[in-house]
Amino acid sequence: MRASILPDLGAEILIPVCAVIGIAFSLLQWVLVSKVKLSPGQDFGSPRNDGADEAHCLIEEGGLNVHNVVGKCADIQNAISQGCLALSFFLSFSKSTNKLVLQRITRNHVHAGATSFLFTEYQYVGIFMVAFAILIFVFLGSVEGFSTTSQPCSYDPFKMCQPALATAAFTTISFLLGAITSLVSGFLGMKIATYANARTTLEARKGVGKAFITAFRSGAVMGFLLASSGLLVLFIAINLFKLYYGDDWAGLFEAITGYGLGGSSMALFGRVAGGIYTKAADVGADLVGKVEKNIPEDDPRNPAVIADNVGDNVGDIAGMGSDLFGSYAESSCAALVVASISSFGIKHELTPMLYPLIISSVGIIVCLITTLFATDIFEIKSVKEIEPSLKRQLIISTVFMTGGIAIVSWIALPSSFTTFNFGEQKDVKNWQLFLCVAVGLWAGLVIGFVTEYYTSNAYSPVQDVADACRAGAATNVIFGLALGYKSCIIPIFAIAASIFVSFSFAAMYGIAVAALGMLSTIVTGLAIDAYGPISDNAGGIAEMAGMSHNIRERTDALDAAGNTTAAIGKGFAIGSAALVSLALFGAFVSRADIIAVDVLTPKVFIGLLIGAMLPYWFSAMTMKSVGSAALKMVEEVRRQFNTIPGLMEGTTKPDYATCVKISTDASIKEMIPPLIVGIFFGVETLSGVLAGSLVSGVQVAISVSNTGGAWDNAKKYIEAGASEEARSLGPKGSDPHKAAVIGDTIGDPLKDTSGPSLNILIKLMAVESLVYGGLLFKLF
Amino acid sequence: MRASILPDLGAEILIPVCAVIGIAFSLLQWVLVSKVKLSPGQDFGSPRNDGADEAHCLIEEGGLNVHNVVGKCADIQNAISQGCLALSFFLSFSKSTNKLVLQRITRNHVHAGATSFLFTEYQYVGIFMVAFAILIFVFLGSVEGFSTTSQPCSYDPFKMCQPALATAAFTTISFLLGAITSLVSGFLGMKIATYANARTTLEARKGVGKAFITAFRSGAVMGFLLASSGLLVLFIAINLFKLYYGDDWAGLFEAITGYGLGGSSMALFGRVAGGIYTKAADVGADLVGKVEKNIPEDDPRNPAVIADNVGDNVGDIAGMGSDLFGSYAESSCAALVVASISSFGIKHELTPMLYPLIISSVGIIVCLITTLFATDIFEIKSVKEIEPSLKRQLIISTVFMTGGIAIVSWIALPSSFTTFNFGEQKDVKNWQLFLCVAVGLWAGLVIGFVTEYYTSNAYSPVQDVADACRAGAATNVIFGLALGYKSCIIPIFAIAASIFVSFSFAAMYGIAVAALGMLSTIVTGLAIDAYGPISDNAGGIAEMAGMSHNIRERTDALDAAGNTTAAIGKGFAIGSAALVSLALFGAFVSRADIIAVDVLTPKVFIGLLIGAMLPYWFSAMTMKSVGSAALKMVEEVRRQFNTIPGLMEGTTKPDYATCVKISTDASIKEMIPPLIVGIFFGVETLSGVLAGSLVSGVQVAISVSNTGGAWDNAKKYIEAGASEEARSLGPKGSDPHKAAVIGDTIGDPLKDTSGPSLNILIKLMAVESLVYGGLLFKLF
Repeated sequence: MRASILPDLGAEILIPVCAVIGIAFSLLQWVLVSKVKLSPGQDFGSPRNDGADEAHCLIEEGGLNVHNVVGKCADIQNAISQGCLALSFFLSFSKSTNKLVLQRITRNHVHAGATSFLFTEYQYVGIFMVAFAILIFVFLGSVEGFSTTSQPCSYDPFKMCQPALATAAFTTISFLLGAITSLVSGFLGMKIATYANARTTLEARKGVGKAFITAFRSGAVMGFLLASSGLLVLFIAINLFKLYYGDDWAGLFEAITGYGLGGSSMALFGRVAGGIYTKAADVGADLVGKVEKNIPEDDPRNPAVIADNVGDNVGDIAGMGSDLFGSYAESSCAALVVASISSFGIKHELTPMLYPLIISSVGIIVCLITTLFATDIFEIKSVKEIEPSLKRQLIISTVFMTGGIAIVSWIALPSSFTTFNFGEQKDVKNWQLFLCVAVGLWAGLVIGFVTEYYTSNAYSPVQDVADACRAGAATNVIFGLALGYKSCIIPIFAIAASIFVSFSFAAMYGIAVAALGMLSTIVTGLAIDAYGPISDNAGGIAEMAGMSHNIRERTDALDAAGNTTAAIGKGFAIGSAALVSLALFGAFVSRADIIAVDVLTPKVFIGLLIGAMLPYWFSAMTMKSVGSAALKMVEEVRRQFNTIPGLMEGTTKPDYATCVKISTDASIKEMIPPLIVGIFFGVETLSGVLAGSLVSGVQVAISVSNTGGAWDNAKKYIEAGASEEARSLGPKGSDPHKAAVIGDTIGDPLKDTSGPSLNILIKLMAVESLVYGGLLFKLF
Repeated sequence: MRASILPDLGAEILIPVCAVIGIAFSLLQWVLVSKVKLSPGQDFGSPRNDGADEAHCLIEEGGLNVHNVVGKCADIQNAISQGCLALSFFLSFSKSTNKLVLQRITRNHVHAGATSFLFTEYQYVGIFMVAFAILIFVFLGSVEGFSTTSQPCSYDPFKMCQPALATAAFTTISFLLGAITSLVSGFLGMKIATYANARTTLEARKGVGKAFITAFRSGAVMGFLLASSGLLVLFIAINLFKLYYGDDWAGLFEAITGYGLGGSSMALFGRVAGGIYTKAADVGADLVGKVEKNIPEDDPRNPAVIADNVGDNVGDIAGMGSDLFGSYAESSCAALVVASISSFGIKHELTPMLYPLIISSVGIIVCLITTLFATDIFEIKSVKEIEPSLKRQLIISTVFMTGGIAIVSWIALPSSFTTFNFGEQKDVKNWQLFLCVAVGLWAGLVIGFVTEYYTSNAYSPVQDVADACRAGAATNVIFGLALGYKSCIIPIFAIAASIFVSFSFAAMYGIAVAALGMLSTIVTGLAIDAYGPISDNAGGIAEMAGMSHNIRERTDALDAAGNTTAAIGKGFAIGSAALVSLALFGAFVSRADIIAVDVLTPKVFIGLLIGAMLPYWFSAMTMKSVGSAALKMVEEVRRQFNTIPGLMEGTTKPDYATCVKISTDASIKEMIPPLIVGIFFGVETLSGVLAGSLVSGVQVAISVSNTGGAWDNAKKYIEAGASEEARSLGPKGSDPHKAAVIGDTIGDPLKDTSGPSLNILIKLMAVESLVYGGLLFKLF
């Protein structure tokens, strides 16, 4: 048995260097995107640039309606160039928001709206973070009665380790670090999305390739920033905590688990709350504004409009980011906590200990190279090349990453080591651990491709659903539900295969690194995911500015590809959540010193049964929240129209904040019961609950996400009318199209609220049990 | 420790006596129902009777349109009085069938149709039964290489027991017995339903109380017949097998498990195949007949009409009967097989060994008394009393049965005994076993009541769903899905509680008797369940005969209560299927000598994950089958209209059989993959698969059944317009009503195909594993 080839110092240098390269590359992409000049405000000194753009505008439009279009281009540029934070934040939202811009509403209006959102949102997040942090501290501290005396180490009862109170304090700190990192990355992601949408539209005048590159680069900014800063903060935290903990690695990495919890908690806001409140606000705004008051959609006079637009973006960009960031942070933490009680943890070999972080570091470099393929090596010449190009990104990053994992496993691991396996130690060879990571990576690719197959309207499943619209909404819904159910089969086998391989080779450590493997190409995943909303917005701006058919066709093609990649992103998120939860479950079990979770004991079995029910309870809650919050929203909007004088005339500002508050309140309070139900059970039952909610939640999440995605794309398939078949179903307003719209509407809360929420449910339950575990062990 | 009070001879007498009393009571009810004279054919000799009826007809109709109505009454009487088996069989189907009667179509037509159905159906069932029987024999026989030599007993290696080939042969025989008992009971149930529907209508002229009694008695015939003959056949089989097996009780009761499999296999036909093909035929018949050819619904010229009508009845009466019969037979078998390796099994104490059968015997007597409350003690005076009266039946039977269980546990069990608990023995007191049975019984009542709450339009959940129709079909579907998800919570806790109690007290034996406890009032459950379709048909006949508003109101009220009881029946079926499957799972585990099914091993965990996916796979299959079979049906019906001359004119018979065949083919072949997937795994993974499919399948089954039921009743709520709120949503044809119809259509395959199929999936997988188990143990 040889030790790892890479010296400890090498690992200590490699990780931060890769993270910093990632951040630098992210900034470079930002700079490149910003080269597309929009703003006359700052660049009045260099009119040459703007002039060139305008010339392009002229050339591309081919003299058709030139004056009008250039005027509108200038309008958009002008509106966007206001450049204030709140505005740019707000402007990222949706194409409808741009209507608002074109209506030349005053800057104050928007600014006030966005600020009131930011204020309310930060208030909630802040309160939540502080409350949660206190809870963690009190729970963990109480385990040993807030004792400040040292205690025997878990790995060696003859040594003394840091007191439980210290672990409580450091867990709380790492929780806050995780939460803040997630929040900041998500926020910056939204900011770059804002920044990029109009630029993508302008680039579309030069050709589809240029527009694609701009949108893709902007997505990459978010991907690199999130992954790199997540890695860097985690690395710094470990090194700082080590100053206090010294040789007590078990305590150190136990304290680090808070980082994962912090990341996932923010996902609760981004995904669940965002999902609920965008749908609530959407319905509320439409019912009063469009139906009763007869004002246009997204009119700024409507008090609920800000809540609506904010929610869209929170869910699409920040939500997905924080979800994947949470999975990434949690799988790293789970791997570290299991590693700390494995042979190299006990023997204090730093390099193998940091193996999970080294994998992520290499992942950043691999994704950097992959990004160059999209932006510099291959060039997109026609709209048909867009979707294959995005898929190629996934394949390239997976292939390169496989090599990267092989190298890291070779140099960073001893040729053989032992890892914790529920009370006993298990021998693992370094090539076995390579296989664990690789199987997770490739399972992710399989899940991505299957999701694409079931949700892209290029293939028969969605086309069959669209065809079912011929017989009405009912058959559309039946076929859609059946599609969702069916789409579980292959992903589940892929997840099962990776669990089997990694579990067999390296027990819970294997599962954790398999999850990390699936997330090792997170940068590419996030880039193609964030690409979606950016292209969507770009299309909206093109439409708003009345650009020519050619340009709209380009942006529409970018958008269509974006829908598919959004579905792939959701597939990744679910798959990785499943693996991560299992890894966390393993960590929980390890901590609780449980040797076996035997289904043949009543406590475990009822845990399994109740756990399998929780996703249904949670989904019912989220779906009902949408409904009841929408009704409250309607009342509030009506109240404001009736009591605020001058609102209809646009001379007074509506009270946006109250509407945001309604949405937020609804989204938070109704999801508490399913989350805390685990606390009332003993350790054995809780193990069952975790396993049950995991195996059942994955199915529900996959099926509802794919069903929703398929309905959305079936509607788009009919609208686009790209084939003989599709044209026979259309056009907009035909009976089959109406049936498709019903399916799409049903799918919205399913795919944007319930489905993504379940990722969070299963992860959060698992990580909560890990963090709170201490208390439970004392009570039962 | 005292032995059981009841001597062995007492048990040997008590069981068949109770069963015979049940059968006699069933016949008595039949005679009482037949007192309502319909048929002038046989009773021409006693015109007094008919005259009295006609007089009633005159009186009730109050002179309004008297001539016309009496003429139609006579028409129906005449048509029904043909009395041939095939006709009566066929006539049970649906109100629309009666239209057909009124059209005075020739007897040959109907006769030929029903015969072609019976022929095709029996052909399929026959082939399936023989093939399955051969499979069982070959699988079980192959375990020991078809050895005919005796082998060491499993309970005592120093004794010699019967050879494996004998067990294979006897298992096959008991399989056939179970299948035939299920089939005959289901068939007779359909026959009595046929017999009763027109009689219920006639009685409705005399008052709602009389009509209720007729419908309820008819349901009771089915209930008593099925439960009693099931018990009697099982008892006789045990006694006959004992002649061969002698003291080898382990072998004897292992062979008896085939009985449960036989019962459940027929449920596969009744519930899954019936569910698929009625929906397929329904759509197929409507699309061509109504839309393309413009002939009325259920016109006998339509080749698919027979398949449609047959399917309805197969699912509603025979399907539910065979489902509950399967659960009943399987829980008895599971209890017996576990008991045979418990202390009184090894010590050959017959009375405690037959405890499960004694419980069922007492259940028959309790339900007999309960029935008298409905038919003789309480009298229903207004339509509002119908639903409470049916609910009262459930409560009365549960309360009395609790006493019955207490007495049986006191006299039939030793004060203390030991039972098998995965490799060790567990001490059980007789009062503990009483609690096991009682907790199952009461959990059933809770599930029934919760199901009623979520699916009856007397309560807010369904009313909320109906209200959501105001905003369109999409909100209706979203609220309906959320309702279904939510309706899982309490039933799951009820099931979990009964599992916890019974598992803790008496391990797998406890689970088996808890399932038996839930099914101990099966007679009452079946009576109120079969009451539903009978009342439905009665309402149809009343409408067809153009009877007065008063009478239609009475039959409608009977029908509405029937909808709710159908939902309760489904709740019972799911709850008992869950307990039964767990009991079978326990029996499988016992047989396989598995000591623990540890979630923390890769094989078990992936089993769990894949198992949780199977209900989705199976549901997708059943839903897709409905769709694709419907399309094939459309083609076949078109083909017949185009190629058979004289079909449109009604001078030639259509080829009903081909349509039935299409439906049947579709329904069988597509559900095989999920059922056999378990065979490819080893024992450990299979344990996980069984547990996973159980905990996940229960949720899907409960949620889709209740969602479907709620949509159906939301539509009925709007149509009935019984409240201010309901009237504001209606009338028929309004936008909210249209939205409700879409929900109802989506719900049909969910509640009539997918949901009930899942009961069968989880039970059949469990019992298959138990029967095939032998082969697997050899292979892996």
